[in-house]
Order: sequence, then structure tokens, then C-alpha cells
Amino acid sequence: MTYTSFFPQQRTLMGPGPSDISPQVQLASSKPLVGHLDPQFLKLMDEIKQMLQLAFQTQNANTFVVSAPGSAGMETCFVNLLEPGDKVIVCINGVFGMRMKENIERCQAQAIVVEDPWGSPVSEDKLELALQQHPDAKCVAFVHAETSTGVCSDAQALCAIAKRYNCLTIVDAVTSLGGVPLKVDEWQIDAVYSGSQKCLSCIPGLSPVSFSPAAIDVLNARKVPVQSWFLDHTLVMNYWSSTQKRSYHHTAPVTSLYAMHEALVQLHHEGLENSWNRHQQQHMVLRDGLEAMGIEFIVDPKYRLPQLNTVAIPNGVDDALIRSRLLNEYNLEIGAGLGAFAGKAWRIGLMGYAARTENVSLCLAALREVL
Amino acid sequence: MTYTSFFPQQRTLMGPGPSDISPQVQLASSKPLVGHLDPQFLKLMDEIKQMLQLAFQTQNANTFVVSAPGSAGMETCFVNLLEPGDKVIVCINGVFGMRMKENIERCQAQAIVVEDPWGSPVSEDKLELALQQHPDAKCVAFVHAETSTGVCSDAQALCAIAKRYNCLTIVDAVTSLGGVPLKVDEWQIDAVYSGSQKCLSCIPGLSPVSFSPAAIDVLNARKVPVQSWFLDHTLVMNYWSSTQKRSYHHTAPVTSLYAMHEALVQLHHEGLENSWNRHQQQHMVLRDGLEAMGIEFIVDPKYRLPQLNTVAIPNGVDDALIRSRLLNEYNLEIGAGLGAFAGKAWRIGLMGYAARTENVSLCLAALREVL
Repeated sequence: MTYTSFFPQQRTLMGPGPSDISPQVQLASSKPLVGHLDPQFLKLMDEIKQMLQLAFQTQNANTFVVSAPGSAGMETCFVNLLEPGDKVIVCINGVFGMRMKENIERCQAQAIVVEDPWGSPVSEDKLELALQQHPDAKCVAFVHAETSTGVCSDAQALCAIAKRYNCLTIVDAVTSLGGVPLKVDEWQIDAVYSGSQKCLSCIPGLSPVSFSPAAIDVLNARKVPVQSWFLDHTLVMNYWSSTQKRSYHHTAPVTSLYAMHEALVQLHHEGLENSWNRHQQQHMVLRDGLEAMGIEFIVDPKYRLPQLNTVAIPNGVDDALIRSRLLNEYNLEIGAGLGAFAGKAWRIGLMGYAARTENVSLCLAALREVL
Repeated sequence: MTYTSFFPQQRTLMGPGPSDISPQVQLASSKPLVGHLDPQFLKLMDEIKQMLQLAFQTQNANTFVVSAPGSAGMETCFVNLLEPGDKVIVCINGVFGMRMKENIERCQAQAIVVEDPWGSPVSEDKLELALQQHPDAKCVAFVHAETSTGVCSDAQALCAIAKRYNCLTIVDAVTSLGGVPLKVDEWQIDAVYSGSQKCLSCIPGLSPVSFSPAAIDVLNARKVPVQSWFLDHTLVMNYWSSTQKRSYHHTAPVTSLYAMHEALVQLHHEGLENSWNRHQQQHMVLRDGLEAMGIEFIVDPKYRLPQLNTVAIPNGVDDALIRSRLLNEYNLEIGAGLGAFAGKAWRIGLMGYAARTENVSLCLAALREVL
């Protein structure tokens, strides 16, 4: 068997992520490779931390990038903050809430589930009721922007409730960061993780994470060691902290972090609020075009994520055939439904660099032609 | 604060990794980004698996890439194969054996340590004695090529001993894969992990892993769930297996895997044995040059890794100053000592693309000039 270099066909990425990346980000990871302890690289890491603090709207010193995808970012938050026997209220309204529950249970903690239907936001009343019933809960965990349904829950309100019951808050911001308002400090989020490949429009494989001082206090007071060596935050911060001598923990994904740096430079060049507004504006153009074709949104307008448009597959339409025609004839990727929405919904992403006029126009034109 | 794009100074990477990468690998991750379920990408993943089987010299169907650095590959092996209370004999002769012990204990398993001095290989007699004393051991774990010391242990002999006592074998091949002979099937290795950034000369951030059928049997017979959701091999293989419908687990680091594919294409173009020979030949040139300068190797010739040359820092020489002059004046990175060797040794890497004449000549010339 002979193997040859890979020459991928270029795609327009309008699924649930990875999203389109800019040409600048695309080239960033091909800059000359340096060592993970090279002074140039340590300076780059410091800038990434600072820019992430701005993106997350936080002063948390413990703001950094996990050297693995968003799922590892999620696991970082749970394995560092939970100990066996802890009780966590987890709000589930889609795939990623379910994944949180899996994480909680694998930490030998107890998950108290607050469930809402797919396509609905997390209910504040149900959370409050669960907290009244479980006054010994240590944490409340929920997904801000549920990638499986396109729903945005009110993270600020949910955290405010959790705080009234003295709980730590753990928030999945994989799809929200950079696309809709997210204010970690103002909203009292104690642990938050995101993904590189959504609205930051960086290459996939990295997970920005931030821990509040209260979360660090809980981590420092642990009785049982963190079950993951790779994700043990105390060890990771010996490498990521800029206030002490850096010591080797693992070899950082140097060139992927170049791409993260460039994506953050672009976000700050545009401005965070401008980025939120652009996602909203492109969403409205896409929405009008889809609705004009008779395609209906699944999520109530009040809770819709501009960056992830979940629409019902029209009656009689062959899901796989249409997606495959879009991919093969137009090089356009849109997302299939996930979990309860498989075969019932499409997920059209307008994330980061994908949220621009030419993408929206292409997507509407291609859908019009194939339907 | 204004942030601008990063323009790294180009380095020659002759430390313990990341190593120099070829221009082809450098460009690979800038090829057009496609989705992690794109048919083009799934085909690429299949080729990566096949080429890794050749590199590892195995028929294991469960050969794939962990979407995170070598430390996560290590953790993948331990969390999937160990359950609380299991007994594991771990051979320690450097930093990475110590890290294995950390992993074992965080799985709530019991680590029986077989210790050898830094700079020595793992002792076969001591392993045999430990197995006699602990007939209930489930696994034997050791490092094939100890990156902290530059020592190669006899993986074949150690595995043969372990197998006589019906133990699973878990082998760290982070620094050995591609640089020295490694024959997973012939040597009866049940779980092996490596790193992308060593002798494969790929960008850092990925960890090739392979499990034998016997290891998969142990995994399938588990009583307790794998403590890591992200590294749960059964779930990961729903995405990596080519014999079933791929289902989403996490978003793969698509462009990093482009680089892995290209690095493996180059390895197979060169030929695995040719690559081993090239490492050995360049090592001998470097060795002769260093010894001519009066620089002494720490490791006995019999156990020396050609790809990681550990030498004593000459008396009276300022470790940090010399390494910093090499970096700042020659853009040449060599490795500091790690752990017990900090301040006492340099680690000069000849890994993958770094193992070529121009690098050896530059390194010798630069050292001659600064010393």
C-alpha cells in the first residue's frame, strides 16, 4: 500500500463546528515551530491568557487553554472541583447536559438532574426547586448555549439562583464564547469552558477554561487527589502561570496555540460586542431567507442562538441526501440533528468567521436549489 | 492593550521534543479545514490508523490517535485497563516511570515499584523478582525510551518476563516510536502510547495509542466505568473505528491530524528501518563530535538512545547561560536536564527530521564556539 499527501477539498463550514476559519488563522499554525519552553512561546501564552480574560470578561488569573478539545475542558472543570460523594445539580436540555451528568458520575459524585425538553432553555423555577430540595448541593452545572438544540439559557439568572444557595457554578460556554454575551465575573460563573472551533474560529482541538478564586479555594481544599493527572489544574498551572517559574507538565500543542492566539487577536481587533452583533445580524438575514423558503425554526425566538440555527427538516425531504448534495455539489457543510433531533433537524452554524454575508447567501442559494 | 500577530523566530529544535518538523509537515496543518465527520476526513483517519499499525509493527485494530499530548495517551492506557484495587508493577528509572506511578494511583490501583537508577535501564532481574513476590499483579508498566535520561530499556525482554506471569504489558513509547526498533506484536505489548512531537516529527499535541486484543478483552470485562469520559476508549472507538458507522464523540483536532498523516506518509516513504538507521548514524556522528570536545555521555553505550543524547554538563560550565546563548545566538534549542538530572545534564535530541547532517554540524559548531 502506498500512501500520499492529503489534499482536502475546500469546504464552507456551517455546521455545529468546526466553523470556517479566517485565512490568517489557517496560516498561523504553519509558522515556525518553537519549543514549549521557548521564551517566545511563553510570551505568546501570556498574551493568550490576557486575551481570553477579555473574551470571557473575567479577571480570573486561572484562565488558560486545555491542550485538548472542549470535552476535555468539561472534564477539567468536573475532575478538579468534584470529590466522591459531592452532590451536583445538573440541568439537562440536550446532549451536552447529558455529557455533564456522565462526567459528574465518573467523579463518583451524585448528579441531581433538572430536566427540560430539547429545544427549551433550562428552567429557572425547576433549578430553584431542586436547590430547595437539595440544600447540600455543592455545584450547579448547566450549558449556556446547547449545541445540540440551538438554545441559549439565561446563564446570568441561573447563576444568580445557584449563588443564593451557596453553590459553585459550572458553565459550558463551548458554543457561546464570542458569539453571544458571556460575562463570567458579572454573572458569577466559577468554572467555565469553551472550545476553539466554534465562535472563536480557531482550529479544533483546544479548550479555553477559566476558574474563579472561589473555585480555586475549593480545589485547594480537596481531600482526594484529582483523578486525572493530565487535567490536574494545580499541575497544569505550574506551566501556564506567568507569575512563577514555568515548569514542564506536558508538551503544549505549540502550533495549535499559535492559531488560538491569532483567532483571539482577530476577535479583539473586531471587538467583542461587534462580534456578538455580527452574529445576530447574520442570523437575522439567514432566518428571513429560511423562513421565506418555508423552513421553520425549532427554538422560540426568545431563546434562539444566532450562531446555531436549528430548523425542522421539511416534510418529505431526505435528510442525508440533501446534506450530501450540499457537501458534494456546493462544498457546503451544514449539521445533522444530534440525539433526540437526529433525522428531524438541521443545525446551520453561523460561528465566528462563518458568520458573514457570502456564507449566508451561499447557504440560502444552495438550499433553494436542492430542495 | 493592543495585541498583534505572532512572528516566531525560527529555531533548530534539538531538545527532548518538540523536534524539528519537515516543511511538508509544517504546511500540512494549513490545508483547508474540513469537518470532523467529512468523508474526506474519515478516509484520512483510516490511513492514519493503517500507517500507525505499520509504525508500531502491529495488527491491532485498536490503533488510533488520542486527541491530546502523550501524557493523555499514557492516561488513556491506565484509565481504560485499571480498576480500583488492581495491582500494577511499575518500573521506574526516570521521570516518565514516576508519571506512570501517579497515573496508577489516581486510578485507585496499587503501584508496586521496581526502581533503577537514573541513567540505567530497567532491570529484568528486579522485574522478575517483583513478579514472584506479587503473583496477583495484573499489569507490568515501563518506559521503553526514557526521555528524561536517554536510556533504552529492553522492551522485548521485559514483556517476555511479564507474559510468563500472565500480566498485561503497558509500554511508554513516546520517544522510541520511529527512532529505534519497536515491535508491538512480536514483543507482546498490550498497550502502547507515543507522542507526535518526537521521532515522528509531527507537531505536538497528539498521542498515537494501540491496544492488543487481550487489552480490549480486559477493557470489555470491566466492572467499574472508565473514570475519564474523554479518554474512554470504547466511546472513542465509536468515532475511530472504520468498521462501523462513525458517531460523534468529541471534535477531533482535524488539522493536527493532517500533520500526523503527512508525518506518517514521510516515515513510510523513507521506510521504518531506514529511519531507525538514520537516527543511529546521526547519533554516531554527534557522539564522535561531542567526545572530541571532551563532553561525556551519561548513559552506557549499550543502553543509549540515538535520538536522545544525554551528556554531562562539563565542570565549571554555566548550564543556563550556554543554553541561552545557543538559543539567542544560534536559534538552536537543546534540552535541559529534567528531575534528578536538572543542572547536571543536557539532552540533545536527534529526533525525526532533526536527525540530519546539517543539524548535527550546527550543534557541534555552536557548542564548540560557546564553550
